[in-house]
Amino acid sequence: MEEQYLTEAEAIDIIREMLGAPGSAVEVGVGDDAAVYHFASSGVILTVDSIYEGIHFTLDNYSLADVGWKAMAASISDIAAMGGQPECALISVAMDAPPTEGQIRELMGGALEMARSCDCQIVGGDLCRSASGLGLSVTVAGTRHPCGPVLRSEARDGDIIGVTGTLGDSAAGLYVLQSGSEEMREKFAGLIQKHLRPGPAVEAGDALASSGVSAMDDVSDGLAPDVVHICQASDVGCEITGEDVPLSGELRVLAEEACADPLGWALGGGEDYQLLFTAPPGGFEAALRALNAHGIPAVRIGVIKPAEQGMKLVARDGQSIDLEGLGYDHFL
Amino acid sequence: MEEQYLTEAEAIDIIREMLGAPGSAVEVGVGDDAAVYHFASSGVILTVDSIYEGIHFTLDNYSLADVGWKAMAASISDIAAMGGQPECALISVAMDAPPTEGQIRELMGGALEMARSCDCQIVGGDLCRSASGLGLSVTVAGTRHPCGPVLRSEARDGDIIGVTGTLGDSAAGLYVLQSGSEEMREKFAGLIQKHLRPGPAVEAGDALASSGVSAMDDVSDGLAPDVVHICQASDVGCEITGEDVPLSGELRVLAEEACADPLGWALGGGEDYQLLFTAPPGGFEAALRALNAHGIPAVRIGVIKPAEQGMKLVARDGQSIDLEGLGYDHFL
Repeated sequence: MEEQYLTEAEAIDIIREMLGAPGSAVEVGVGDDAAVYHFASSGVILTVDSIYEGIHFTLDNYSLADVGWKAMAASISDIAAMGGQPECALISVAMDAPPTEGQIRELMGGALEMARSCDCQIVGGDLCRSASGLGLSVTVAGTRHPCGPVLRSEARDGDIIGVTGTLGDSAAGLYVLQSGSEEMREKFAGLIQKHLRPGPAVEAGDALASSGVSAMDDVSDGLAPDVVHICQASDVGCEITGEDVPLSGELRVLAEEACADPLGWALGGGEDYQLLFTAPPGGFEAALRALNAHGIPAVRIGVIKPAEQGMKLVARDGQSIDLEGLGYDHFL
Repeated sequence: MEEQYLTEAEAIDIIREMLGAPGSAVEVGVGDDAAVYHFASSGVILTVDSIYEGIHFTLDNYSLADVGWKAMAASISDIAAMGGQPECALISVAMDAPPTEGQIRELMGGALEMARSCDCQIVGGDLCRSASGLGLSVTVAGTRHPCGPVLRSEARDGDIIGVTGTLGDSAAGLYVLQSGSEEMREKFAGLIQKHLRPGPAVEAGDALASSGVSAMDDVSDGLAPDVVHICQASDVGCEITGEDVPLSGELRVLAEEACADPLGWALGGGEDYQLLFTAPPGGFEAALRALNAHGIPAVRIGVIKPAEQGMKLVARDGQSIDLEGLGYDHFL
């Protein structure tokens, strides 16, 4: 039997059924002009992030569930990067053809699975036609950390720079996906998973905010541009020690096989959604302890310097590389 | 001198300068991972709406300022349709080529002008590449009316159906834009303006919510589908009197010249962003008085019936037309 195309109203009915009964904070959920949500505090964190087919993903490498998951993860990560708790989300979906029930269930299933894993409820959105390709725009609203949002702009000269987890795995996973070899894909399935199903660091962000870190950002564009974001916003410079950038064993094995520099993926790759943070020297150990209490690994990768010293990475051979210009620009 | 293309960072700097100093409710504005906004009450209305080039607009008929204005107006209208007050907005922009400074200023200028006219602050967003065409996704957050949000689902048998302003002007304006005759465009400039620069009915929504109307929706898809939205959500039927649907003088003149049925634009055209509302017989006059106090015209167009009587429009000749199926589906 051929699958039927859905009308907008039918698609909304299916989504509403998938979402189930709304939680107690939801006064109005999917199906009216807008949602009404009751936040526990008046300070609400709001962010939006969009991904487009052909730019951020292709459907030969991504399932629709991966696309839904990843769009949701990217927006939730922005809340985590401030130390906030995601609470509710709106998802705007544009498709170039009416969807089948299977497609709607797969796409929304991925977004819903990701949102639920972070205790975030989907409360609304919209569905419309695009001229070409699939586009998702996800808004997430969350609540501030009691100690206040951790900004990018509060890093100070002398602060220690740290990062959670390992970096470059997502970019390396994309490399494996695009390399096309079935054998490679099997061998490096862990890296592919890191690319397709990243997990935003909500718990880490909360722990770091509680410990009193000075500045924070999620590693969404790549370590180099995200370090530059913090330095520019804080009007400081930095020195990152290349050897200290945390790389996974799987990434190192792949780099050797591919004759690639593993650090390249970490610096320019992005989409790791780990947290980059700074803390005064006396507070850095407390930050590591706060993360450790949740089983979250983190390491020191450098130090904040005065602005006039620039933003540098010191390589193993002692060479100093300018971090500006290594980055990712969404328009370029 | 040729205009230069902007990087993402340069575009954000220009937008930040255009936005000016944030209001006192904004703890964190544009430039960090997310915005932090302090709402006056805990119940927050959230909505998102997206428009895409080639589907919702073309750049031969719309200036970039029109596109920015209209995307913002559509989302603010969803807040108005619940009787809420828009407070802040996030704007996600996807472009298929890096923008020039002129393009960013025009697009954001239109969005900003619309938002400011409704006391709504732009507090964040994102910029990214699309595979083809311009896409805008606007999230608006607002505060509930003290009497609660007015839903689509509370219309009851016997309620009077009313609508603000006149209907069909926006669709007729699009018809004139597409007809291509310069003479027509000059003659019907008012209709074109209604299409390109619709104003959401925030003041009307607030007045109607205060007067205790039972159900409300904005006329975004067309009178027929929007009446159907209310009837289906409320599990009721209706009888709309075709002759009572408010049409502007300009629309009637155009219909005569174009040998078209003016009611067709009102029923199926959409994007008028007037408010459609229902009130118990004893409360309808109070609703009109509340609007009148603000100089907002409104009229009675029909009555809510039991569900089994269907959703009908009674034409001048006494013929009864089924309103279902006259509508607009975003996927079809």
